[in-house]
Amino acid sequence: MKQNKYDEAAFFAAYAQMPRSVQGLDAAGEWHELRALLPPLSGKRVLDLGCGYGWHCRYAREQGASLVVGTDISEKMLGKARELTEDEAISYRRLAIEDADFPDGSFDVVLSSLAFHYVDRFAECCDRIYRMLAPGGQFVFSVEHPIFTARAEQDWIRDEQGAILHWPIDDYQHEGLRVTSFLADDVHKYHRTLASYLNDVIGAGFTLRAIREPQPAAAMLSLPGMRDELRRPMFLLVAAAK
Amino acid sequence: MKQNKYDEAAFFAAYAQMPRSVQGLDAAGEWHELRALLPPLSGKRVLDLGCGYGWHCRYAREQGASLVVGTDISEKMLGKARELTEDEAISYRRLAIEDADFPDGSFDVVLSSLAFHYVDRFAECCDRIYRMLAPGGQFVFSVEHPIFTARAEQDWIRDEQGAILHWPIDDYQHEGLRVTSFLADDVHKYHRTLASYLNDVIGAGFTLRAIREPQPAAAMLSLPGMRDELRRPMFLLVAAAK
Repeated sequence: MKQNKYDEAAFFAAYAQMPRSVQGLDAAGEWHELRALLPPLSGKRVLDLGCGYGWHCRYAREQGASLVVGTDISEKMLGKARELTEDEAISYRRLAIEDADFPDGSFDVVLSSLAFHYVDRFAECCDRIYRMLAPGGQFVFSVEHPIFTARAEQDWIRDEQGAILHWPIDDYQHEGLRVTSFLADDVHKYHRTLASYLNDVIGAGFTLRAIREPQPAAAMLSLPGMRDELRRPMFLLVAAAK
Repeated sequence: MKQNKYDEAAFFAAYAQMPRSVQGLDAAGEWHELRALLPPLSGKRVLDLGCGYGWHCRYAREQGASLVVGTDISEKMLGKARELTEDEAISYRRLAIEDADFPDGSFDVVLSSLAFHYVDRFAECCDRIYRMLAPGGQFVFSVEHPIFTARAEQDWIRDEQGAILHWPIDDYQHEGLRVTSFLADDVHKYHRTLASYLNDVIGAGFTLRAIREPQPAAAMLSLPGMRDELRRPMFLLVAAAK
């Protein structure tokens, strides 16, 4: 059951207001750490799963990638991506991540930014990605951190004045669907433990290169709310090699 | 600054009352998962860092290990270990984990159970362990989970009737000393993020084999409080290969 929330008009309109939608990668608090995990992209064939507006696809080409394929389940997101892209070496395909299947060894780098937490069967995705990568290929992705996805509420605990007390965890070992609110109600995410994420990557045959739980860049700490991001991890970034 | 809390009489006496002290490994909720991560031990040279009562040392010999060395900073713990052990192939050495240094390639397996969260400089330990292991050697350890060590309070948030509401996280990205209570006050533990634990292991040269965030064994779920252990991860287990 693949939800396509991004094609709902209200959701898509709300997403369009997010800083990362308006300003691109530099407005994404975790980008400086995700970028550092990427291998040199010059001459590489790159697949971006859940490409959204295509920011990472265009970045890959700026870095010299020879060919980039971006996939997304949402026609509206791909429409925006095509609007923002003038580059014959980037192609966009409408595919759910679970259905993205290309011939063995088609890519040198597979990346995915904040999309796998919408996917139910992550282990199967890892197996497929391993197969689609050439020997020595690199797999780099970010997801919402399992600490963030454990409770469907996905919000801080606050005192009566609204000040943050702490981040709550509950239900951590219970993996599966979380019906949550993000820009709209009834957004389907899938909670997995941190162990599951990492073991699924290892189980597919990959060697883990690095794990990151990003902190906001120092220059962003003065922005509203950013300092609270030091209190709990919001994102998990993983780099692995075939 | 290495604290030796286990040699304080009151702490040692309280530790002696814990189920895992009285009944051994089978009373430890995470043991079934730690055991599953251990490689076959037959004929292997095993080092146990922070061996305590020596339960894992004796287990290794039961599994056919050829030689076992257990180290601990606490003379009282080693006294108990020696009292429980009649086996010439097991030797106990009084050493802080930071000072445990043996010739290159001395061991085939290094294990450590719930001890590294007392250690300040984990990366240096990983480097030393890598060096002490023979090629193909295995490193398996458990620690209190970073979610558990982030706040010094290390306790649930409860309602007015004392019922558990959730587990709180705060201060996660701030690594370092936590002065906490465990069997006694003023216990020095060191909080590290999950990324730091794993990257330090990778950085030393190891390949990660598996990560576990154990759940209580099904047979233990009827014990008081055990079902709450599904609500947040308490332990982190890591297996890595040289």
